[in-house]
Amino acid sequence: MQETIGFLDELADISASVIRNYYRQNFVMEAKSKGDPVTEADKKTEEALRKRITEKYPDDGIQGEEYGVTKGTSGRVWVIDPIDGTRAFTVGRATFTTVIGLCENGVPVAGLLNQPIVGDRWIGAKNNPTFFNGRPVSTRDCAALEHSRLILTSPGQFKTEHEKAAYKKIQDATGFQIYGGDCYAYGLMASGFADVVFEASLKAHDIMGLVPIIEGAGGIITDWRGKAITLDRCSGQTLACGDAKLHQRLLALMAA
Amino acid sequence: MQETIGFLDELADISASVIRNYYRQNFVMEAKSKGDPVTEADKKTEEALRKRITEKYPDDGIQGEEYGVTKGTSGRVWVIDPIDGTRAFTVGRATFTTVIGLCENGVPVAGLLNQPIVGDRWIGAKNNPTFFNGRPVSTRDCAALEHSRLILTSPGQFKTEHEKAAYKKIQDATGFQIYGGDCYAYGLMASGFADVVFEASLKAHDIMGLVPIIEGAGGIITDWRGKAITLDRCSGQTLACGDAKLHQRLLALMAA
Repeated sequence: MQETIGFLDELADISASVIRNYYRQNFVMEAKSKGDPVTEADKKTEEALRKRITEKYPDDGIQGEEYGVTKGTSGRVWVIDPIDGTRAFTVGRATFTTVIGLCENGVPVAGLLNQPIVGDRWIGAKNNPTFFNGRPVSTRDCAALEHSRLILTSPGQFKTEHEKAAYKKIQDATGFQIYGGDCYAYGLMASGFADVVFEASLKAHDIMGLVPIIEGAGGIITDWRGKAITLDRCSGQTLACGDAKLHQRLLALMAA
Repeated sequence: MQETIGFLDELADISASVIRNYYRQNFVMEAKSKGDPVTEADKKTEEALRKRITEKYPDDGIQGEEYGVTKGTSGRVWVIDPIDGTRAFTVGRATFTTVIGLCENGVPVAGLLNQPIVGDRWIGAKNNPTFFNGRPVSTRDCAALEHSRLILTSPGQFKTEHEKAAYKKIQDATGFQIYGGDCYAYGLMASGFADVVFEASLKAHDIMGLVPIIEGAGGIITDWRGKAITLDRCSGQTLACGDAKLHQRLLALMAA
């Protein structure tokens, strides 16, 4: 795992150096669909990451947000979101991140979350503590619903009646809510600043890198039924908590 | 106005030096009401700002979020939000800001918006261009609804049926939406990264400092009926746009 941790650190530097060229500059932007922008920076960053991964581990697979799946033969897959929070990036707000996960046989075993402007870098790897800027971090003990701090990304992601009902329950139960989270929220939770992150529409390229970071910091992340998330089983409905007791409470509340 | 601009710069340094001591540290937090936290950092920052303003301009009034109104005799009032975005501050996310406005006979004539961690500082003053980190900035020309970038803070601020209906109209009309804005959003708009900021519950201590910043960058900020915002007329329902044509279109859309 030490090699992997070092390599994730290298990938963070590579992506940061590309992203910094575009941040708050004029860049080409297209809409993949209404309200879903992609920029030149997303594409160039993913290109640079894919190039370096292929060079270093030619037998590994790659799955990226912008360029899809490249199959490998090793059973290992690098899962990449070059810029999570493209909207934040577009409005010049440094809450976007680069997320990279390494899966072995579909199970996330190592992950990187990097915010290159503020300089916030989390790296998690199985059987290791999660590191934030080189130092081990852990989540906050907070089992009490009324003191819990919830981070969400946007209200619009809760689309079905079931999702809207779950959202309302979680929102009413937690101490306070803050929006505009994106994947950055999971790092802030790993560092003990927030207690819950709740989403309905995370994609595999968002989440694979986050699982080892949260688990290595002592937190827990599952789907809304409490099941583990893997590359093949990733519904997008995600509940992450810093404290396992809080996670149990919120799962029970949603099931009630 | 040059003296005022220099003094706002000094106040930004004072608030930044207090806030940096608390950012991502353990600090005392209370709830003013459910979901409305206030921290030691909010209070200490406002104390430091009030002290310096009183020292420099003993005849001026002060109106602050945490310590209320101190009356003056000069017709000038300094309106302070020591930490706007206390929730963001609490979860360690550098999207909170210090906002300070100077009003003359109730009219906002100068303002500061400062994000001390990223190092983003906007200063606006009547008959002057808005400065971002010492350089003049201007808003983006974007009259087309479908290309417009909307920043909001949270969905929960739209409470009445009228507010909810207006929120839906604005949301449907704009190109994309991003949440978690807080007052920082107005600076990003002044710098031309976003096109619309839409809120239902801004307070006087949030907004007075923002008006000169937006106007000095070529943008426009009014209430939902298109009326100017002053210290005495500040309903909280606020529409700010980088492009006056876009502002007209959105006002018409809300009235329809």
